[in-house]
Amino acid sequence: MSKIAIVIFDRFTDIDLWLMWDLLNRVRVADWSVKILGDNGSHLSATGISVATQGRIEEANDADAVLFVSGQGTRDRIADADWLAKFDLNSERQMIGSICSGALILAKLGFLEGKTATTYPTTKSALEALDIEVVEKPFVAHGNVATAGGCLAQQYLIGWVVEKLADKYWSDLIVKAIQPVGEGLFFEDAEELAKLYLPRVNAAQI
Amino acid sequence: MSKIAIVIFDRFTDIDLWLMWDLLNRVRVADWSVKILGDNGSHLSATGISVATQGRIEEANDADAVLFVSGQGTRDRIADADWLAKFDLNSERQMIGSICSGALILAKLGFLEGKTATTYPTTKSALEALDIEVVEKPFVAHGNVATAGGCLAQQYLIGWVVEKLADKYWSDLIVKAIQPVGEGLFFEDAEELAKLYLPRVNAAQI
Repeated sequence: MSKIAIVIFDRFTDIDLWLMWDLLNRVRVADWSVKILGDNGSHLSATGISVATQGRIEEANDADAVLFVSGQGTRDRIADADWLAKFDLNSERQMIGSICSGALILAKLGFLEGKTATTYPTTKSALEALDIEVVEKPFVAHGNVATAGGCLAQQYLIGWVVEKLADKYWSDLIVKAIQPVGEGLFFEDAEELAKLYLPRVNAAQI
Repeated sequence: MSKIAIVIFDRFTDIDLWLMWDLLNRVRVADWSVKILGDNGSHLSATGISVATQGRIEEANDADAVLFVSGQGTRDRIADADWLAKFDLNSERQMIGSICSGALILAKLGFLEGKTATTYPTTKSALEALDIEVVEKPFVAHGNVATAGGCLAQQYLIGWVVEKLADKYWSDLIVKAIQPVGEGLFFEDAEELAKLYLPRVNAAQI
């Protein structure tokens, strides 16, 4: 059983939830579960879209991978001690990752101490203010902790998660499946892509 | 006033709505309106996410740009004469575009007649069965009609819409804003990116 938690909150960046959600939901290995977690029954995105959560954030403490989305809302989250205290994550037994300003949450939870990290350009100074060395790279992993910067760098973050929790075949396939035609994805890939539409096996029902 | 309609339906591919939605909502020009349209109050995505629509599909007939998402649900849509009959689009006065299997809808509505088009690899044969010449390119535009193939080719499709309805400055900026850090987006871009967080002016409220 692989359990993957995506943590959202109010004023999250829409695409920083949905690209990872979509990629993770293409994986067809048995007992593969992906859940959107929050501290309310729904959260409003940066563009005003209401997204229903599928579990409370405490469920992240029991997941195999915990991924934090980004958005203007991260500033409120890192100032909310009660919210931060709900997490009891452990990078010895869990993969922990972020896209863009989600790195601020990883930093506040102590997972970036002494590590380099990446984030969105507009968040660089806020992350540096938390004593993190910020590097201009799309993806930075140290053991089980990783940060990605720039929305489309979710490909690297999710590839990292899927390669470890499933395998490299699935990691490569789901990333290839979203590339532009003629630029990484080709008509001759059609047969292999059909695997992405197979029924799920024992996946958690939404 | 620029009105952009994104048409969804049941079993649409999640990322093929949300990437275009997010990109379009980054534009900060006056009177810029983006709406998700459907023939129900909500539609279920391919992964089971319920998405509320913001208007009925007939509103597309009055939009400046009409964009069709993709997904397994396109097969039902092109077989539904009542649904297709609700559209009264005109490529003389409207931009009309699709991502991936949304090209099937464009074909059924007659907008690809005698034109080359692109689509998702698994949809190539279905589009060819509608007598369309399918080419292995990420983006194909003929005047006001365009098709894009492969989820991330939405960048080209939305860039095309934004360049025409706003300008090249905004088209370039929103596409740059989602690139991976160090691969098209850089820390020195932070100041310019702040423009994407300015308040909207006279935008349609969701």
